[in-house]
Amino acid sequence: MRDFTKDHSALALNTATLGHNVEGHGVGWSPEQVIDACAERGFGAIAWWRREIGGRALEIGERTRATGMEVCGLCRAPFLVGPLAPPTRQAVVDDFQASVDMASELGATCLTICVGGVIDGSHSMSESLREAASIIAHMAPAAEAGGVRLALEPLNPVYGGNRSCLVTVRDAVNMCNEIDHPAVAIAVDVYHVWWDLSLGAELHRAGGDRIAGYHLCDWLADTRDVLLDRGMMGDGVADLKSIRGAVEGAGYDGYCEVEIFSANDWWERDPEHVLDICVERFRSVC
Amino acid sequence: MRDFTKDHSALALNTATLGHNVEGHGVGWSPEQVIDACAERGFGAIAWWRREIGGRALEIGERTRATGMEVCGLCRAPFLVGPLAPPTRQAVVDDFQASVDMASELGATCLTICVGGVIDGSHSMSESLREAASIIAHMAPAAEAGGVRLALEPLNPVYGGNRSCLVTVRDAVNMCNEIDHPAVAIAVDVYHVWWDLSLGAELHRAGGDRIAGYHLCDWLADTRDVLLDRGMMGDGVADLKSIRGAVEGAGYDGYCEVEIFSANDWWERDPEHVLDICVERFRSVC
Repeated sequence: MRDFTKDHSALALNTATLGHNVEGHGVGWSPEQVIDACAERGFGAIAWWRREIGGRALEIGERTRATGMEVCGLCRAPFLVGPLAPPTRQAVVDDFQASVDMASELGATCLTICVGGVIDGSHSMSESLREAASIIAHMAPAAEAGGVRLALEPLNPVYGGNRSCLVTVRDAVNMCNEIDHPAVAIAVDVYHVWWDLSLGAELHRAGGDRIAGYHLCDWLADTRDVLLDRGMMGDGVADLKSIRGAVEGAGYDGYCEVEIFSANDWWERDPEHVLDICVERFRSVC
Repeated sequence: MRDFTKDHSALALNTATLGHNVEGHGVGWSPEQVIDACAERGFGAIAWWRREIGGRALEIGERTRATGMEVCGLCRAPFLVGPLAPPTRQAVVDDFQASVDMASELGATCLTICVGGVIDGSHSMSESLREAASIIAHMAPAAEAGGVRLALEPLNPVYGGNRSCLVTVRDAVNMCNEIDHPAVAIAVDVYHVWWDLSLGAELHRAGGDRIAGYHLCDWLADTRDVLLDRGMMGDGVADLKSIRGAVEGAGYDGYCEVEIFSANDWWERDPEHVLDICVERFRSVC
């Protein structure tokens, strides 16, 4: 395993950690402020959300790289299936293409995919997964053309109904293998996988080339809101070192991206302080 | 698979469906009222909660059986580990023994075990599971002597931090196999396992003799409270017939126990109506 105690150049910020993923939340820093604050602290990369980028993808990408950092991700493609997806497959594909284009302009290495929940009336995870896989397979060549990898992120099973019928690393690896396209990989997020004792074996099966991202936070024992109450690394019950050991044991050597949705705690704090704590915890407990 | 369309004698009521598991909730029917209402509708069995039973285990058990029904369960032993468990191992064991004694007096075929969450400071699911397994193994002979089976219930991973570090059927089967005692089996609850595509294979590995219970409800796509917003069968996204197919395919032929925690919906309704709907949905969608 890599030693981060004296070197945090592998640390990345997902701007959701500052509340920038949800309208009406967060301190509202401009992308320039985020870039400068991360660069000052020696972060290696930033993952952005589409709502922050608007029409400025090229500019924000260049500005990020000008500081020596990379753009490690863009969140995210639309939900592909289920109750929160756009109303038709064509509408999904169109918005998916728009997100690929934005990621490409931004120079993001990957675009996060949350596949969406169970198709209304289907009562079937399997059918919903098949439809999601079909859309991803359809979009993979466009992603490849844009120089972007699609990072399929299995979400915690608590989101299985509405946000992601893809709920385990096992299922994500299976979907990846079925689609079998170099632009399609998986993302591993502590919040979603911390409970899974088969994680190491499943990631080994995937192999490092098929892991496009690793996301950090912690699972609070007494999670009060499954969407917006994630913990800072070290404040929860997840075995962070073992999880990273599994990810790196599979061959992953990319960024570790802090992504903390926390409406009533971290989003309420001074963002300078939040970033400082991210660095400190990354070096000490991750 | 059994055909329930014209015969619902395999239907059991878990009294949590009437809100009797949580102080201050539910209509507050006496056990006698519950028994009569279930017997009138042709339920086959009832699973009770300790708080309803108090010092009347013998009486309530006999009264249940006098109507031709059985007592299929008692909820539940204390949490064994983690933040919600009694403060010492001895306190856990004492309360565990009290719950075994109550189940035995009641004539309940099984006692539900929710193992509790991750041990404070351990950051380890594995260590927490080992300690829980050690306590269960210690109590298994007492359960056998009381004629009660211990039903290890894996809970949805969303409860991994505080209520159950046992979060998959796979892990429950492994724990069962490791303890390897005839009084130790698993319980399968739709709410906790509906998302798991490996369910059939894992239950097959367990075998019917190691399945002590099957619990029904539904997973609402837009679940608003992970503790108290379970759905009535048919109102959610779970593939109820496939799940029962997996349970029965493994050899289970026992009761199907409706257990719906629903503070703001079903617990607010007329319990006579709730029971009628349970019967109707059991016959039509389960």
